[in-house]
Amino acid sequence: MAIAIGVDLGGSNLRIAAIRVADGALVAHHREPVGEPRDPDTIVRRLVAVIERMRAEAKLEAEAVVPVGIGLAAMLRDTAGTVANSPHLRWRDVPFGRLLAAALGGRARLGVYNDVNAIAYGEQVHGAARGVADVLLVFVGTGIGAGVIAGGRLVEGASSCAGELGHAKVVWGADAAPCACGGRGCVEAYIGGSYVQARARRELAAGARSIATRDTAIDAITPGDVDRAAAAGDAWALGLWAELAPLLGVTLANAIAVLNPARLVLGGGMLGRTQVLRAQVIAALHALAPAASLEPLTVADAILGDDAGLVGAALLADAGVSIIC
Amino acid sequence: MAIAIGVDLGGSNLRIAAIRVADGALVAHHREPVGEPRDPDTIVRRLVAVIERMRAEAKLEAEAVVPVGIGLAAMLRDTAGTVANSPHLRWRDVPFGRLLAAALGGRARLGVYNDVNAIAYGEQVHGAARGVADVLLVFVGTGIGAGVIAGGRLVEGASSCAGELGHAKVVWGADAAPCACGGRGCVEAYIGGSYVQARARRELAAGARSIATRDTAIDAITPGDVDRAAAAGDAWALGLWAELAPLLGVTLANAIAVLNPARLVLGGGMLGRTQVLRAQVIAALHALAPAASLEPLTVADAILGDDAGLVGAALLADAGVSIIC
Repeated sequence: MAIAIGVDLGGSNLRIAAIRVADGALVAHHREPVGEPRDPDTIVRRLVAVIERMRAEAKLEAEAVVPVGIGLAAMLRDTAGTVANSPHLRWRDVPFGRLLAAALGGRARLGVYNDVNAIAYGEQVHGAARGVADVLLVFVGTGIGAGVIAGGRLVEGASSCAGELGHAKVVWGADAAPCACGGRGCVEAYIGGSYVQARARRELAAGARSIATRDTAIDAITPGDVDRAAAAGDAWALGLWAELAPLLGVTLANAIAVLNPARLVLGGGMLGRTQVLRAQVIAALHALAPAASLEPLTVADAILGDDAGLVGAALLADAGVSIIC
Repeated sequence: MAIAIGVDLGGSNLRIAAIRVADGALVAHHREPVGEPRDPDTIVRRLVAVIERMRAEAKLEAEAVVPVGIGLAAMLRDTAGTVANSPHLRWRDVPFGRLLAAALGGRARLGVYNDVNAIAYGEQVHGAARGVADVLLVFVGTGIGAGVIAGGRLVEGASSCAGELGHAKVVWGADAAPCACGGRGCVEAYIGGSYVQARARRELAAGARSIATRDTAIDAITPGDVDRAAAAGDAWALGLWAELAPLLGVTLANAIAVLNPARLVLGGGMLGRTQVLRAQVIAALHALAPAASLEPLTVADAILGDDAGLVGAALLADAGVSIIC
């Protein structure tokens, strides 16, 4: 029974599992808060320990060389796991892949991947796009990330930065909204969950009238509250969604024009709680993508949940993708 | 010496060559007008004849099974060479790949590709992106087409429609310009050569003042004339370029955000004759793409010229990509 180890290292949690390669089942798993300190040396030391623990729990032989895949909430710079920037971990220019490879010694075939890329691969092998060779996965949470599978292979790009769909520009010129990335006009700066939430609260605090504020204090309003108001016919909420939905719709349509995927997999906390917005985004996408690109396309929700990144990273390492050592 | 046969079937010319796989050199070649009639049966019969001629000129053994790749100026529907639509050939829903495969008998390993995809592959193996694994090639001629290479492999997409970058939307809403594809707001409808030419003549005929009309009749004005006027500081020409350059720039930037290529290869008759516009497009692309995506990127001009499609189609068939029979 082939086993691979997957790690999902986010801003809040460090999750790790031993995965049965054949079906993606978790044969052992462990979760702990990332906590502090979170400098690279500390994290590498902790990873070595939890990987060792997974090896023991999965009853791997002491000297067995096992695939270990790490999905990182970070902007990478290369396929050797160099972190250009991770706001979550507060890392910049960290040779994380090489540090971890050195610490693991020779008993791992290590790969380091962007977390959303790992999720895309997990959903493609064992999830919502199983058996589909050409896939675009887009997660809309606080920000927006994407992963691309073409011909059954993960598209990593030249420096492991493929799938930066959140920083596709939907407005250019003087009135483009500032984005946390330092750019302006990124789709994430309009429809990423944290931006939508801040904007909704700002507009309501400035006097916009909406039923969203009936049961909820303005400074507790979430995108889900806006969506419930839109579902009830609230003019302000519907106006906001009518402005935002085409921005994500055109971003998806244009990516689909370039990639011609057979499946678009949607996920993330924002779209999961905004069904009215989600429907408007999909309508906009269908209106704006080339007809020929839409012909083979189906849209599905991600189904692996929090396990997708773990499973995908483990399977990428098992498949030998961008192995560091 | 491995030989493959490549065909470039456009709206005007049928070109064919026997290619030396090792270096892309043409060991025999032939060109004839497509002419009339151009129904599928006639074209298939002519292709069988010219392929036979190439086999003889390249001194292939009578029973040798040789790779034959066809690059088609058409929107395909699948990897079996089904043509959804080719305005150039006036074909709709033609099972071209299967017809040609049946006519060729067993002596070919046949693949049918979109012409710009074939060009991208040719430039990647023997041209402006030689040795670069992740490539975006964009041709701006009368229209706009693109080809994507990821990890050294052509991205064909689920129905051989990948790279439809010309139909990425840059304007959405009521004022979006109509495109020949039936959609509205496509980047091609703004900056494709035929649209730029028509718009320039329309504006000048309506009274716009420009030095472009000094030596050239309005109904003979080309995008190259507009560019020369812009280079000389003409306000109308500079204004037109300032409006159009960001539209192609943002389209390229957003594709680069998704694909993270190491090389952007530009070609096509329009950009080749509009150096001021080209420089503005590249400046806009650099302003609008994510910084991390720009880090590994270089921009180059296509170098294989009219041979790129032939060479690319032959090499794709030789590499076994989407072989029909």
